[in-house]
Amino acid sequence: KMLGRVLCTVLFVGAFPSPAEASQGHISVVLLGATGDLAKKYLWQGLFQLYIDQVSSGHSFTFHGAALTALEPGQRLMFDVLKKLSCPQDEAPNRCAVLKDQFLKLSQYHQLKTAENYSALSREIETLLRQEGLKEAGRIFYFSVPPFAYTEIAQHINSSCRPPPGAWLRVVLEKPFGHDLESAQQMAAELTGFFREEEMYRVDHYLGKQAVAHILPFRDQNRQFLDPIWNRHHVERVEVVLKETVDAKGRTSFYEQYGVIRDVLQNHLTEALMFLVMELPANVSRAQEVLQHKLQALQSLWALERSSAVLGQYQAYASQVQEELQQAPGYVSTTPTFAGVLIRSDSLRWEGVPFLLASGKALDERVGYARVLFKNRAYCTQSGALRDAGHSQCKPKQIIFYFGHGALNTPAVLVSRNLFQPVMPKDSWKEAEARSDLHIFGQPLSDFYVYSPVKERDAYSVLISNIYHGRKDFFITTENLLASWRFWTPLLDSTSLQPPRLYPGGVENQHLLDFEMVGGGVAFTVAEPAELLSPSMQMPSDFRAVQSKFRQSPLVSAWAEDLISQLASDMEEAAVRSVARSGQFHLALSGGSSPVVLFQRLARHHYSFPWQHTHVWLVDERCVPLTDSESNFLSLHRHLLQSARVPYFNIHPMPVHLHRRLCVEEDRGTELYAKDILALVANASFDLVLLGVGTDGHTASLFPHSENGLEGAPTVVLTESPIKPHQRMSLSLPLINKARQVFVLVLGKGKHDITTLLSRVGHEPRKWPVSGVRPSSGQLVWYVDYEALLG
Amino acid sequence: KMLGRVLCTVLFVGAFPSPAEASQGHISVVLLGATGDLAKKYLWQGLFQLYIDQVSSGHSFTFHGAALTALEPGQRLMFDVLKKLSCPQDEAPNRCAVLKDQFLKLSQYHQLKTAENYSALSREIETLLRQEGLKEAGRIFYFSVPPFAYTEIAQHINSSCRPPPGAWLRVVLEKPFGHDLESAQQMAAELTGFFREEEMYRVDHYLGKQAVAHILPFRDQNRQFLDPIWNRHHVERVEVVLKETVDAKGRTSFYEQYGVIRDVLQNHLTEALMFLVMELPANVSRAQEVLQHKLQALQSLWALERSSAVLGQYQAYASQVQEELQQAPGYVSTTPTFAGVLIRSDSLRWEGVPFLLASGKALDERVGYARVLFKNRAYCTQSGALRDAGHSQCKPKQIIFYFGHGALNTPAVLVSRNLFQPVMPKDSWKEAEARSDLHIFGQPLSDFYVYSPVKERDAYSVLISNIYHGRKDFFITTENLLASWRFWTPLLDSTSLQPPRLYPGGVENQHLLDFEMVGGGVAFTVAEPAELLSPSMQMPSDFRAVQSKFRQSPLVSAWAEDLISQLASDMEEAAVRSVARSGQFHLALSGGSSPVVLFQRLARHHYSFPWQHTHVWLVDERCVPLTDSESNFLSLHRHLLQSARVPYFNIHPMPVHLHRRLCVEEDRGTELYAKDILALVANASFDLVLLGVGTDGHTASLFPHSENGLEGAPTVVLTESPIKPHQRMSLSLPLINKARQVFVLVLGKGKHDITTLLSRVGHEPRKWPVSGVRPSSGQLVWYVDYEALLG
Repeated sequence: KMLGRVLCTVLFVGAFPSPAEASQGHISVVLLGATGDLAKKYLWQGLFQLYIDQVSSGHSFTFHGAALTALEPGQRLMFDVLKKLSCPQDEAPNRCAVLKDQFLKLSQYHQLKTAENYSALSREIETLLRQEGLKEAGRIFYFSVPPFAYTEIAQHINSSCRPPPGAWLRVVLEKPFGHDLESAQQMAAELTGFFREEEMYRVDHYLGKQAVAHILPFRDQNRQFLDPIWNRHHVERVEVVLKETVDAKGRTSFYEQYGVIRDVLQNHLTEALMFLVMELPANVSRAQEVLQHKLQALQSLWALERSSAVLGQYQAYASQVQEELQQAPGYVSTTPTFAGVLIRSDSLRWEGVPFLLASGKALDERVGYARVLFKNRAYCTQSGALRDAGHSQCKPKQIIFYFGHGALNTPAVLVSRNLFQPVMPKDSWKEAEARSDLHIFGQPLSDFYVYSPVKERDAYSVLISNIYHGRKDFFITTENLLASWRFWTPLLDSTSLQPPRLYPGGVENQHLLDFEMVGGGVAFTVAEPAELLSPSMQMPSDFRAVQSKFRQSPLVSAWAEDLISQLASDMEEAAVRSVARSGQFHLALSGGSSPVVLFQRLARHHYSFPWQHTHVWLVDERCVPLTDSESNFLSLHRHLLQSARVPYFNIHPMPVHLHRRLCVEEDRGTELYAKDILALVANASFDLVLLGVGTDGHTASLFPHSENGLEGAPTVVLTESPIKPHQRMSLSLPLINKARQVFVLVLGKGKHDITTLLSRVGHEPRKWPVSGVRPSSGQLVWYVDYEALLG
Repeated sequence: KMLGRVLCTVLFVGAFPSPAEASQGHISVVLLGATGDLAKKYLWQGLFQLYIDQVSSGHSFTFHGAALTALEPGQRLMFDVLKKLSCPQDEAPNRCAVLKDQFLKLSQYHQLKTAENYSALSREIETLLRQEGLKEAGRIFYFSVPPFAYTEIAQHINSSCRPPPGAWLRVVLEKPFGHDLESAQQMAAELTGFFREEEMYRVDHYLGKQAVAHILPFRDQNRQFLDPIWNRHHVERVEVVLKETVDAKGRTSFYEQYGVIRDVLQNHLTEALMFLVMELPANVSRAQEVLQHKLQALQSLWALERSSAVLGQYQAYASQVQEELQQAPGYVSTTPTFAGVLIRSDSLRWEGVPFLLASGKALDERVGYARVLFKNRAYCTQSGALRDAGHSQCKPKQIIFYFGHGALNTPAVLVSRNLFQPVMPKDSWKEAEARSDLHIFGQPLSDFYVYSPVKERDAYSVLISNIYHGRKDFFITTENLLASWRFWTPLLDSTSLQPPRLYPGGVENQHLLDFEMVGGGVAFTVAEPAELLSPSMQMPSDFRAVQSKFRQSPLVSAWAEDLISQLASDMEEAAVRSVARSGQFHLALSGGSSPVVLFQRLARHHYSFPWQHTHVWLVDERCVPLTDSESNFLSLHRHLLQSARVPYFNIHPMPVHLHRRLCVEEDRGTELYAKDILALVANASFDLVLLGVGTDGHTASLFPHSENGLEGAPTVVLTESPIKPHQRMSLSLPLINKARQVFVLVLGKGKHDITTLLSRVGHEPRKWPVSGVRPSSGQLVWYVDYEALLG
């Protein structure tokens, strides 16, 4: 009945040319949380916009608001919202009035509480469609509810409200999607029990912001200009920034649990960054390709470390938390309200290019942008005055996707005029007036080609339209979500107890939150001003490395990250000393997982390491081809050698694969390696040997009760591992003990038991081979992290 | 008699405290060309300054002006000059008047023309010293004469005018020191016949400019600040610039022979650059260490190519040359009056940092500076207005050694205030007023710490003082001179016929001379404006690569540089195609000298080459250890592999050094290599084999009448070379002929005969192995440069 009327009206407004096209089928939109804030502010308006845009698409619609409230008051509340819906500026008032009337008639309130409520809704939809003789195209369920309600609702939808076969289901989910990797995984696992991946539309409303949504199309349409310059040779840096003037007042109960990284960086800014740096798919309208490339870009980021971020908290935050959460006056919050993060990518395209993300509350202005700054590759022969005129190549060159607010107060795409005049779709972006009175990033606006949207559209309108069109690339897939949390969680964990720098807020912040790149990470440029330091913010010196003794040898102990950074520095120092002494540094490295982080740190932080004069040897190797994923050398190559400038001749993999066969005795690989060592390493005494320890007390590939290598000659031996691959090659204990220095690295809770045991036992290499590490005239140092040491 | 008076006077002015100190000995200064322009303008004044400074040093002096003019008129001319000597500002007028009077009395004119004249001068000095009872300390001969006169004068000095044993001789030489490497070598060889290296002081007056002379002391005194940032991680670029407003009018007879590169870049700018980029010696006052480090820095520069420079010529130059040199109106000069050059260093410290040198006449301002610009590593959270205040880390950071003129009109050292406050020697440099009305490099002067000399001193005064002090580091050694010419000559040769861009001169130049870095070289940023192109400047299309046939196969021919660049591009294209097809690219490379330039080009220009998927094989190898300087692999490693990101596993040196012995048959290295090829290269068919040709027609290490490798199985063989080292390993002809593509590179005049021969003979591999290169199903392309092709 209701639908009959709709069709009439649609014909009346002349937007529905032929009944043949009416056969696209019917779409039911269910808005859960229909009377909540988000619904009031954006979602109903977005649905109305969808209706206006798609009324003549051939689809028919009904809109179902739902909440826990009983029918009658709920209905009233909802229609109060609907009555206030506004007409888009670009819509003829007459047509809009008719459509709004129509939209109201197509909208209905439901109380959705029990399983029965859901079944009833489903029956209602089916009945309606049968009556009108319409085919069902699909159902959209928009979850505008708190995440704790997700599971129950999902369960009900899955069991009672799925559309019949042939029609699709789309459930739209709003963040937060967990607060770290574990919770996100858990939540994702639950949802996966109810919905298929293609049914879920996770909203990050930044992906609906016009400037963000246009990043990929821009890159696609301007390939001819961007292809040669969209790389590390031309890009100086990438910045993605969201600055807010408001603070968290009134929202601290939420904010205290999340902080700025979870609230803004993990989602909005990361997503915008990915659009900038991902490899551009051949066809940007293929959602699957876009999602795949975005995921790859996310996975190619270097792991974040504590030093990758600077954190701040506006001064009033503490008292707001105390007041709103009724905390005792002594309560200390370490929740950051400002963060600046340095991100780097491993891809060849972006190697060495800093990606800077920054966001905060209580800052001096409200603005958001993603900005690609190019290197100045020009020399301008003419002096200053003239240099500033015209399209000088010496002026900064940048491309800015301006999210909105700020000086421009509109979404925009800006391209420096000395770069190129971009191709922009004329129907959706128009060139803006070149105002030279406005300055942006230190340049007059007239230095840019400036484009703003023909129609400014709210992010939710854009997204709702994309849900309708099934454009999954505007949403966050489960894989993408988990990859993002995998990337951010280590930083969240390592900084959770770190006191953020306090800042007064607004323009008073001055240079207090400026930060700069230092030694692979970032640091505030201005030293901590003493008067701002609240005494209660002093932290225990938990993070300071402690030094003591372990098995009568020096012990360095700290949290893993600090320990690795100390070890890397000590290794560089040893290398520099050795090169100064003998012109060379002979370094023997172990395989396994522990050293991977160390290798990465050496590769990425230690630019002054004398690689050119370093010889890299293997302590042990698995009898697999060097290119096998099990190979110690492969891991060493991937994480260190590939980036360090060690000459080819100085790299000495173990010859486990002679004559294209593995560790065959008669190929005499061990002899060969021993000969190489004798020929190159003075007195066969390595300058530094790095070892690890297994839970069984093995070190190198010397296992308990091994027949070879635990005693006898300083040589290279074949051994048997209890774990696959069984065959190994290893330096023998006597050879290791000839070294000038031996460092043993022990990381993680899993090593606590063996660490405890080792602290008690004496020299029993047959039982615990590592206990036999006793350099005859060299130095032994233990690097044991707190988890291994203290459990 | 004369000296007796001197001593009295000196005692009178009170600057000569005790006769004991008078025993340092006597110095005779002989100024050859005493009445010439340079002498008039700077040298006499410099000698007078030396006298003022050193009158109480314990040395006594006489000054001997000399020229070809007869005694009486010469005397008159010289004393006209001496009378006009001015007193330094910082000298008390009374004392100065006395000293000037004294100086005039100590100065004497000599006609020096014949050998007898020189002997007479020497006898005169000896007589004088005997009369006064003074010991001779040394003699300074200042050559202020045209270079063609050098040899004769040098001969006379050497044979007739050397001081007695125990006293030193210093001869001071003025540029030009040759006009290319060959002429410089010749000139140096001649001088070496007369003087020892330590006796020669070659003047580059830039080294006497106060701002240039202070570069090393500045780096030394500010080590604490500079050590962490004086490298590729922090420095964005280095610029050394000399801009002049004057043109060459009236001097074209000189200028037409030299041009701006020989006049300014090869000497002044290069020297200033070296002071900036050389490794800092532990002790900067040790001349020998400074010279050694400077030489090393010069030797570590990448070879210049034609694309390394942009050249210009002011429009009026042509008519000035026609007029002054009485050339016909059709005369075309390609002498550049403007040059911008991109220089790169191979050192780890500066890898990737562009050094830009620029100089020209008829520009918009007169100024000279050496400038180190640092990367912006900061993000400033506060917006624009506040960002500009105070010591923001987001402002440009630079250190400028300002030679003089320009906006400051004084030599100066400038350091950005957001960088550090430098340590400056207070007795010689004073902090200048911070004037915010003056802008320099786009920043108000108040953004800098600005230091200017306490006493401004002319470069020649500084240098004359340094000659006196024997500071050889202020002068150009023979080694240094030849290294500089070795660096610049290839560019001069390759651009000698290139028409420079014409520019109108002065501020009219606008952006016409702006240039930017593109693909490893530089290019003007503004396209050549057609209306400025004089039709007579059109050049024959000599430089365009021609394509045709050679031995029935495609031939690419061009001048060597173009040929190499074409070959490199073709190789990249082949690589990309192969990786797209099979995921891999198997490339077999030859040794020898010809491919070195190719390797460098690949390493430095082809960033998109798919190295990660490329396997590098050797076509042939000498039976020497891989680290031997004779090893083909070592050269390949040094010039290509070191910079390209080829994975370790994909690098396949020939196993000529198994079991630490060389090419022993029973080690079966050839079999091993053949097996590796079979295992990794599909069908043992390389994607691309690069070959060369010897003058005897050999290719790979397959020599005429070789017993192995010319026919038979596609395999790897041991061969004998007629040239040392005799033993070689090589791919066999049949194996080479299985390749998908074979490129043969032939370069240089020396290959003209064999090229001509090969163009005539058929398939005779036993006589000329290269004639047997006939890929059975692949493609063969010849890359032969004009010199090899046309002789």
